[in-house]
Amino acid sequence: MTYPKIPLAQTVIQLCKAKNIKHIIISPGSRNAPLTIGFTNDAYFKCYSIVDERSAAFFALGIAQQLREPSAVVCTSGSALLNYYPAVAEAFYSHIPLLVLSADRPKHLIGIGDGQTINQKNVFENHILYSANLKLDLKDEKNIPVHEELPILKNLEDKFERLLGLQKDIQTFNEEEINTAINFAIVKKGPVHINIPLDEPLYETVNKLSVSPEVIDVSVKPNEIEDYILKDCLQDWNEASKKMILVGVNYPDTIDKKWLNELAVDDSVIVFTETTSNLHQNNFFPSIDQIIAPLTENEQKQLQPDILITFGGLIVSKKIKQLLRKFKPKQHWHIDEKEANDTFFCLNKHIETTPNEFFEGFLTKITHYVKSDYRAIWNSVKNKRLKKHEEYLSAIPFSDFMVFDKVLKTIPNNYILQVGNSSAIRYTQLFNVNKTLDVYCNRGTSGIDGSTSTAIGCAVVSKKPTVFITGDLSFLYDSNALWNNYIPKNFRIIVVNNQGGGIFRILPGHKNTENFDTFFETNHHHTAEYLCKMFGFKYKSVSDANSLKSALKSFYLEDSHPKLLEIFTPKKLNDEILLQYFEFIK
Amino acid sequence: MTYPKIPLAQTVIQLCKAKNIKHIIISPGSRNAPLTIGFTNDAYFKCYSIVDERSAAFFALGIAQQLREPSAVVCTSGSALLNYYPAVAEAFYSHIPLLVLSADRPKHLIGIGDGQTINQKNVFENHILYSANLKLDLKDEKNIPVHEELPILKNLEDKFERLLGLQKDIQTFNEEEINTAINFAIVKKGPVHINIPLDEPLYETVNKLSVSPEVIDVSVKPNEIEDYILKDCLQDWNEASKKMILVGVNYPDTIDKKWLNELAVDDSVIVFTETTSNLHQNNFFPSIDQIIAPLTENEQKQLQPDILITFGGLIVSKKIKQLLRKFKPKQHWHIDEKEANDTFFCLNKHIETTPNEFFEGFLTKITHYVKSDYRAIWNSVKNKRLKKHEEYLSAIPFSDFMVFDKVLKTIPNNYILQVGNSSAIRYTQLFNVNKTLDVYCNRGTSGIDGSTSTAIGCAVVSKKPTVFITGDLSFLYDSNALWNNYIPKNFRIIVVNNQGGGIFRILPGHKNTENFDTFFETNHHHTAEYLCKMFGFKYKSVSDANSLKSALKSFYLEDSHPKLLEIFTPKKLNDEILLQYFEFIK
Repeated sequence: MTYPKIPLAQTVIQLCKAKNIKHIIISPGSRNAPLTIGFTNDAYFKCYSIVDERSAAFFALGIAQQLREPSAVVCTSGSALLNYYPAVAEAFYSHIPLLVLSADRPKHLIGIGDGQTINQKNVFENHILYSANLKLDLKDEKNIPVHEELPILKNLEDKFERLLGLQKDIQTFNEEEINTAINFAIVKKGPVHINIPLDEPLYETVNKLSVSPEVIDVSVKPNEIEDYILKDCLQDWNEASKKMILVGVNYPDTIDKKWLNELAVDDSVIVFTETTSNLHQNNFFPSIDQIIAPLTENEQKQLQPDILITFGGLIVSKKIKQLLRKFKPKQHWHIDEKEANDTFFCLNKHIETTPNEFFEGFLTKITHYVKSDYRAIWNSVKNKRLKKHEEYLSAIPFSDFMVFDKVLKTIPNNYILQVGNSSAIRYTQLFNVNKTLDVYCNRGTSGIDGSTSTAIGCAVVSKKPTVFITGDLSFLYDSNALWNNYIPKNFRIIVVNNQGGGIFRILPGHKNTENFDTFFETNHHHTAEYLCKMFGFKYKSVSDANSLKSALKSFYLEDSHPKLLEIFTPKKLNDEILLQYFEFIK
Repeated sequence: MTYPKIPLAQTVIQLCKAKNIKHIIISPGSRNAPLTIGFTNDAYFKCYSIVDERSAAFFALGIAQQLREPSAVVCTSGSALLNYYPAVAEAFYSHIPLLVLSADRPKHLIGIGDGQTINQKNVFENHILYSANLKLDLKDEKNIPVHEELPILKNLEDKFERLLGLQKDIQTFNEEEINTAINFAIVKKGPVHINIPLDEPLYETVNKLSVSPEVIDVSVKPNEIEDYILKDCLQDWNEASKKMILVGVNYPDTIDKKWLNELAVDDSVIVFTETTSNLHQNNFFPSIDQIIAPLTENEQKQLQPDILITFGGLIVSKKIKQLLRKFKPKQHWHIDEKEANDTFFCLNKHIETTPNEFFEGFLTKITHYVKSDYRAIWNSVKNKRLKKHEEYLSAIPFSDFMVFDKVLKTIPNNYILQVGNSSAIRYTQLFNVNKTLDVYCNRGTSGIDGSTSTAIGCAVVSKKPTVFITGDLSFLYDSNALWNNYIPKNFRIIVVNNQGGGIFRILPGHKNTENFDTFFETNHHHTAEYLCKMFGFKYKSVSDANSLKSALKSFYLEDSHPKLLEIFTPKKLNDEILLQYFEFIK
């Protein structure tokens, strides 16, 4: 077996292996050569080469999202690392484990005007679980100028640190730091950064490892809820006649069905689920905005719950946030092992455990259902809206709204549905999505910067086929996502192209002025066609209902290449149809 | 005139105007709507709409590089801001003034799970001259929940800060911060970040300004060199028979010709100029690597200067760095108003003024030239190399090396030449470039991430026409650069496509193994053709000397569209020809 000669590179790679980090996304460079050599020569790792680091990191994010364990990105020194930042922030807020491995110059070569050299230490400070700043291997000590560095304060400091480091043993320090960083990613679920100084020669190899780093295991003890908290909760719950459960981003198949069924039959409980919650139960309320948007202030007040329980990640619906901030529940409990956002300014309990653990301890102790017409009332609203919804659909012309209906209805069973930001996910939320689909969307930062790359990462490791629905701006933004040699043939992209940021037409700007068109809507006439030709996607475009119907019939059939369907919609109509929808379903 | 209603947005915009920041690059968003409305409704500003923030910031960098004064980028809240980071770092190390204006949510809406919300405060900490974290307008005070926030420590802290803020007057605080940030960008030359919290409603406008912010001027006193330093310098200079001047990145027409002529006739002085130094004098040594690369260790030692003077930005040539680190000059003086890198571990004087000021004080006081054969010896080496260089060129087949010769020779007079990283600038350095060209390259971080966008920014504001030469990886990386409605018709791109990162073939990797090809060279078969079709460039490709010659003949002629010439070179030959070159010219 071939290993990089540098012990620090060996150490990083061996610890990744020991911690089951298998998927390694490498961007080209020279400083990171020892890492690249090590990872690519060990068949344990599945390595990917992706040039644009921004796309590489989102691709890695898509892999980690599916596997629910860390993937790693590896880059050279310099601005390469900074291109990871959008995905690092998304991983931070979406709680996705992502390991960033950056090669760096040795400290004495930083800040002296060398090329591809920046200040990499703690560079993701604002959005990272842990930053491990490793120290140069002792074996490379010889490379550091000794006498010459004395006049320079910075190098003195370096030297001082290194002398201290020597006492502690640099190898031990590095091993501990690497272990800590990776353990953070695994346990706390999020991005960590390991910065790795490597000195020339970078390309030398050996046939035997010179290190055998200690693996420090993670011990996770399940969080049990204190009895007095549970008691407290039960007492309030048993007295409240209006209880709302609101679920944000949530992995498929993580909540036991029996708890969902239990909640579904309680008349005093309504469960609002977002599309990204991946929860389905006939008695639940899956299209929040459909219910809420048309409500008068008085009706909103009637919806105000006594107790609000939330779990899962961030909430897409702006309308439910506005409503609950205005008509605050008396209590808000958030269930999450890690953290609780005070989204509605009334959080009074952070229950630090998983939803399943909580329901196990909680629902099993409920002895009676509170008599209430809370669910019944809103159920009748829901049914009325659904009827109106269908009526509206049968009356409207070809538009974004109609397209999302048709597209969502024709996705085959058991697909993974990846959705772009922001219009795409907002439209998707207005429809009842096929229950066999797993739905994902980058809602950590809700950026348009890496949805395609994330979807491709997902498609590469998932056993289920993946379809990705996105708007045109988001798609064009991340076009480098297609510069990827690993895209499976069964991957599908649907671009809803309304020739600009259609979402801005719904906001209160001044539509149809030159300024609006240029700086808000960002009009353009680009299509996905040439990108498909360039990167080997089969391409088809449609711009009316009949062609859409016929295109969708064959879209998911097996093919020799991944496919992209571009749907052109009438941009000046789309916003009217959406706004009228909320009027119509009143 | 139409202004945004929010006073803070007015304040930012009025101060930009007062400080002559004219070029505003806006990426679409809603949180930044007040800024977009304000900038685009004032004809003083030249506004540009660019969707991908990474490209937008490099485009702004190209503008600022040409104007030598700040341009501004404006984005919405969330990960949008993070996409500016690669250009911010480039601006930081290249000393280019760049003003980052990010819209943000009000503090009480950060960290509670709202969409498009990250921790924007000081996010560029490692690579920024100044971060101004503005406070929410007093007029928006009503929007902050008061009672409800009490239990939450974070909001308490916010409230406390705001109460303190009130005493100082938030408006005054904000005005001071904005002034300080912009003044830093102007005086210290580099990136600054102003983070601007804006609360809804965001789209309201007024016809009269409600603020009239105070403009705090910058006072820059010219740095005079202390007499005793000058005396010291003169004494050492007059005794040294081997003096080397090495010039890195330097703006065209900034060094007075008379000082160059003065230096050119001193037999004890050799002046090494990089292509990016934009300095030309027959007695200078413009192709550093050509001289140095073939030297034996003994010859290198003969080149070792007693005194090394450097000025300008970062040095491209690795070989001169290696040589001067090994055979250190007795003294190294760096002339720069702002900072001095200890690139060769022997810096003993940082002369804090401009090169012109220094030469004015210094060269005028030199009474005699030291007798020396230093320049004569190296001049004969130079001439020998130049002869060999021509001989080599006439013998080699079509390759990167030949292409750079032909391309550089045919650029018309008085063009701006923008060069990509890294092969492109390294090849360019081996040739004597037409003296009427202005040469630029992003050597601050030496990234491949934004060279095309930078070149386009340059082309948009420059009176001279711009040609950009780049490699294929760098070009594909920044393909979103072409998604730009402002590209002038006379803009030209030359892509030297060797189907991967040709530079890695020169490094000591293990060529022609699958691992090498995939993870170092990053083989691909993509071309610029489809991108040209998509973004309205006229496209032509060539792959032999004759077609190249003929293509170059018409390439610079006036046309209805910008043009791109793609030159395919034989990737397995290129590295051999470059390496043999250094052997041949010995």
